[in-house]
Amino acid sequence: MANSKYEYVKAFEQPDILLPNTWIVVRIDGRGFHKLSDRYAFQKPNDRRALDLMNAAAVEVLKDLPDLAIAYGVSDEYSFVFHPTCELFERRGAKLVTTIVSTFTAHYIFLWSKYFVDTPLQSPHLPSFDGRAVMYPATQNLRDYMSWRQVDCHINNLYNTTFWMMVLRGGMSNTDAEEELKGTVSADKNEILFKRFGINYNNEEEVYKKGSVVYRQYQLEDSKTGSDSKAQSQADAQANASKTQQEKLRKLRRKAQVVVEHVDIIKDEFWERRPWILSGKPGKLPAEA
Amino acid sequence: MANSKYEYVKAFEQPDILLPNTWIVVRIDGRGFHKLSDRYAFQKPNDRRALDLMNAAAVEVLKDLPDLAIAYGVSDEYSFVFHPTCELFERRGAKLVTTIVSTFTAHYIFLWSKYFVDTPLQSPHLPSFDGRAVMYPATQNLRDYMSWRQVDCHINNLYNTTFWMMVLRGGMSNTDAEEELKGTVSADKNEILFKRFGINYNNEEEVYKKGSVVYRQYQLEDSKTGSDSKAQSQADAQANASKTQQEKLRKLRRKAQVVVEHVDIIKDEFWERRPWILSGKPGKLPAEA
Amino acid sequence: MANSKYEYVKAFEQPDILLPNTWIVVRIDGRGFHKLSDRYAFQKPNDRRALDLMNAAAVEVLKDLPDLAIAYGVSDEYSFVFHPTCELFERRGAKLVTTIVSTFTAHYIFLWSKYFVDTPLQSPHLPSFDGRAVMYPATQNLRDYMSWRQVDCHINNLYNTTFWMMVLRGGMSNTDAEEELKGTVSADKNEILFKRFGINYNNEEEVYKKGSVVYRQYQLEDSKTGSDSKAQSQADAQANASKTQQEKLRKLRRKAQVVVEHVDIIKDEFWERRPWILSGKPGKLPAEA
Amino acid sequence: MANSKYEYVKAFEQPDILLPNTWIVVRIDGRGFHKLSDRYAFQKPNDRRALDLMNAAAVEVLKDLPDLAIAYGVSDEYSFVFHPTCELFERRGAKLVTTIVSTFTAHYIFLWSKYFVDTPLQSPHLPSFDGRAVMYPATQNLRDYMSWRQVDCHINNLYNTTFWMMVLRGGMSNTDAEEELKGTVSADKNEILFKRFGINYNNEEEVYKKGSVVYRQYQLEDSKTGSDSKAQSQADAQANASKTQQEKLRKLRRKAQVVVEHVDIIKDEFWERRPWILSGKPGKLPAEA
Repeated sequence: MANSKYEYVKAFEQPDILLPNTWIVVRIDGRGFHKLSDRYAFQKPNDRRALDLMNAAAVEVLKDLPDLAIAYGVSDEYSFVFHPTCELFERRGAKLVTTIVSTFTAHYIFLWSKYFVDTPLQSPHLPSFDGRAVMYPATQNLRDYMSWRQVDCHINNLYNTTFWMMVLRGGMSNTDAEEELKGTVSADKNEILFKRFGINYNNEEEVYKKGSVVYRQYQLEDSKTGSDSKAQSQADAQANASKTQQEKLRKLRRKAQVVVEHVDIIKDEFWERRPWILSGKPGKLPAEA
Repeated sequence: MANSKYEYVKAFEQPDILLPNTWIVVRIDGRGFHKLSDRYAFQKPNDRRALDLMNAAAVEVLKDLPDLAIAYGVSDEYSFVFHPTCELFERRGAKLVTTIVSTFTAHYIFLWSKYFVDTPLQSPHLPSFDGRAVMYPATQNLRDYMSWRQVDCHINNLYNTTFWMMVLRGGMSNTDAEEELKGTVSADKNEILFKRFGINYNNEEEVYKKGSVVYRQYQLEDSKTGSDSKAQSQADAQANASKTQQEKLRKLRRKAQVVVEHVDIIKDEFWERRPWILSGKPGKLPAEA
Repeated sequence: MANSKYEYVKAFEQPDILLPNTWIVVRIDGRGFHKLSDRYAFQKPNDRRALDLMNAAAVEVLKDLPDLAIAYGVSDEYSFVFHPTCELFERRGAKLVTTIVSTFTAHYIFLWSKYFVDTPLQSPHLPSFDGRAVMYPATQNLRDYMSWRQVDCHINNLYNTTFWMMVLRGGMSNTDAEEELKGTVSADKNEILFKRFGINYNNEEEVYKKGSVVYRQYQLEDSKTGSDSKAQSQADAQANASKTQQEKLRKLRRKAQVVVEHVDIIKDEFWERRPWILSGKPGKLPAEA
Repeated sequence: MANSKYEYVKAFEQPDILLPNTWIVVRIDGRGFHKLSDRYAFQKPNDRRALDLMNAAAVEVLKDLPDLAIAYGVSDEYSFVFHPTCELFERRGAKLVTTIVSTFTAHYIFLWSKYFVDTPLQSPHLPSFDGRAVMYPATQNLRDYMSWRQVDCHINNLYNTTFWMMVLRGGMSNTDAEEELKGTVSADKNEILFKRFGINYNNEEEVYKKGSVVYRQYQLEDSKTGSDSKAQSQADAQANASKTQQEKLRKLRRKAQVVVEHVDIIKDEFWERRPWILSGKPGKLPAEA
């Protein structure tokens, strides 16, 4: 074939298979969203339209990729999680990351006008996202990763809420507000919010305080169930599942509703009542579905 | 800080710096475009709207990323090339690939309605792309990579043109056409096209036969110049360029017009007359610019 | 400094940190030992001197590197295992592998004359070893790896024992023996050994049938203890251990005796009675020590 | 087969093929040689026996691996260089590094008693080495790497020579000598050597000042030859060489004598007169050979 002379260049492509039996987290981040939020006049400290758009795009990604176990979003970032038994794209790192980044971007652009009704996109200033994959060997590592992001959400939101109250309602300059907040702890910020602006941070909307969890919904289970050991054995079971069985599981997952919630994912309860997330095995579809 | 307990999970992120002084090619491919081209009724063997849309999105990517030296597109794939001296994102592989994939996707979705005027996108069936980065140590390897893609373009287009003529005009079934073409060489296909359908393949449009090259335009140079050795020393020069100088080069590149051409990139002439592509050093802006 | 002009080449060194919280197995293999065993007239099917030398070298490696949890050897290969909490050399892959390969080689050469009293080494035909590191995320994966090697030991030893009996005692040619053994199962080989040569395979020496396990000896524990869950929590504890504590653990490990045994490591009992191996936490030193 | 249940663990082994068409440098370093040189009473500032032993071991490595193009040693480190066309072990990184480390170690231990006649090795305090592989895409990068090591040799040797003169002959304490040398430049050290101890540094032995270059000797060529462009085309030629041809080249290399020299490898002359090193193509065997 005429092409054989050049085909040797394929040998330069290097494999990037992610280690088997590890959780894979693909985290994507908005590129230059600080500037972008100015251009499109995002509301401060949180723009509900922007968050709803992020969540809507994430829901589409989960629908498109039944292998995804769960996702968590805050601000302009989203973390998508594949189960250790996932074999999608033979676990090729670049393929997994780019597929998620591209699918997310496509829906984000497509849905923009639905959420920003009066603010059309202006080319070339289009939103885009970068991403990376990280492996976590143990379920505890994955849980700690999720907790890390949710604690970060809390810390940033408390800071931003206080900062923007001081600026927008308190009439302070950005610099002065920043200066005053330097070195403060959570209690200080709560007090500023309450004393100066009559705001009880606890009453802020959950979507801002907790971020957004996206996953497939099945029948919730009694939280007493010790999920961990069970999860493990189920995971093992699936690891040995044939390709046919894996296809069957994929179909079951496609039937489940993808939901968005703003709840605590640091404590055990969330995971114990939704054991299918850590086990990688679909739960029971709700009776009403 | 409250988050410190969980922050250890950051240690699981592994570096993915691409080897210095190598050409970086980011190739993106349409995900499931066979099915997608059916859904949106792409014309066979080539849909000019689809190719123009690909090219328009690629132009935006080059405008957005002045570090890109050149890009080459054919069908639903596009290869974006960074020079060996490129230091964008500290050469982090995932960051480079996802930024290109996401920016391309954003513009592709955004521009869709301009090129497919009567065929609106139907969610969730949105186009998306995956991608990967490959390193090429020598300029000859990069040249051979580009040649590989352009030869592939030719081979596929000759096949597709013949196949679809046999089916659409010749009234053959897909299977029969496929069967007849099995084992044929170029001359055979040229003859089928000419004898049965009066088509001289050489007269087909260049965009189909050659694919699309996208790059920054400066004043073309006399092709006698031996570009290679010169390119090398210039590249060396830039490798030692300070950050300030690199920023200056970036600005020069932003000023250049990004053009799309359908020309031979296998022979030396293309590269010799546009030495800035391989040298990584901006050329002279055209007098009229 | 005069060297700064060239020091940029250091940037080409790429990091190779192994993923945290994974078991690290460094497996080394004799280079060209088939030929080497001919040159130095190793006895067939097993040369006890060669195996004792392998084990002696492995013991020295474990003494030299207190971070090693366990090792398993068979024929001319040895697997050295680091615990998921291991931070030796910041988990740099090449450093871990080469240190083990070099230390093992040094002792193997140094000790050769002790085990091959009448067969001096002939330069340049010196024994050498290559090696590689593999990560295993779950303890079950590590256990399965160890089982894989021990089952392999059994399969190969049964084959080799039968083959060499047929050749050495049965007077068959290598080819004929090979041909007859093709497609046979274990029962067939056992029968050949017993019927033709009066050999009960079960009575063969354990070192040949089971290979060699090398580890640090503490007081054996009652096998009823469920080791796994305990191991996990201990491992977690150590993961958070300070550098001072880790140094203390290292000293404790140096005090323990390194032993070589030829026992089953597939069943749970071995691991349950020696929980320090999987937990990564030193056990109690024997009273008599 | 009984082993199939466990064999899945092989899937955890990850490929580590080094990028094609790059120079591969395997640098090995003595482990804890500071302490080791005390234990075996190495002479200061340089122990000729130790260096000769390093060189003898390196020669054996080059003889064992005809694919090696050149090596350079200084103090307790040695850099071994494979040509970009090298396909040894399919360019698997761990295999290349460990093979060199182990072969070097084996010969170092084996030859010890020849060079340290009155100083036997004391187990477990055996010398060992770690190592790593680095890729260099361009010949200039490789040249700069070699220059980096030789400049380092010079800097360290000048420092060490001065320091040890001040201590051994000048009667200063280590701390005082170190303190006085802090911030000095080469001229200062040359002056101390000359004024206080009557030593002209230029007259020191070349092996100490230049380190040791090890390579295959063919007929030296006239240095006027522009080697670079030629080297490149030869390299290209070999890249396309069939396996048979590569085997033939390997045989030619085995016939060449491996020599050790203490010469400048920073300037062009060394490389121009020995074009086979950079070209990867064997030169002509000397008439007398």
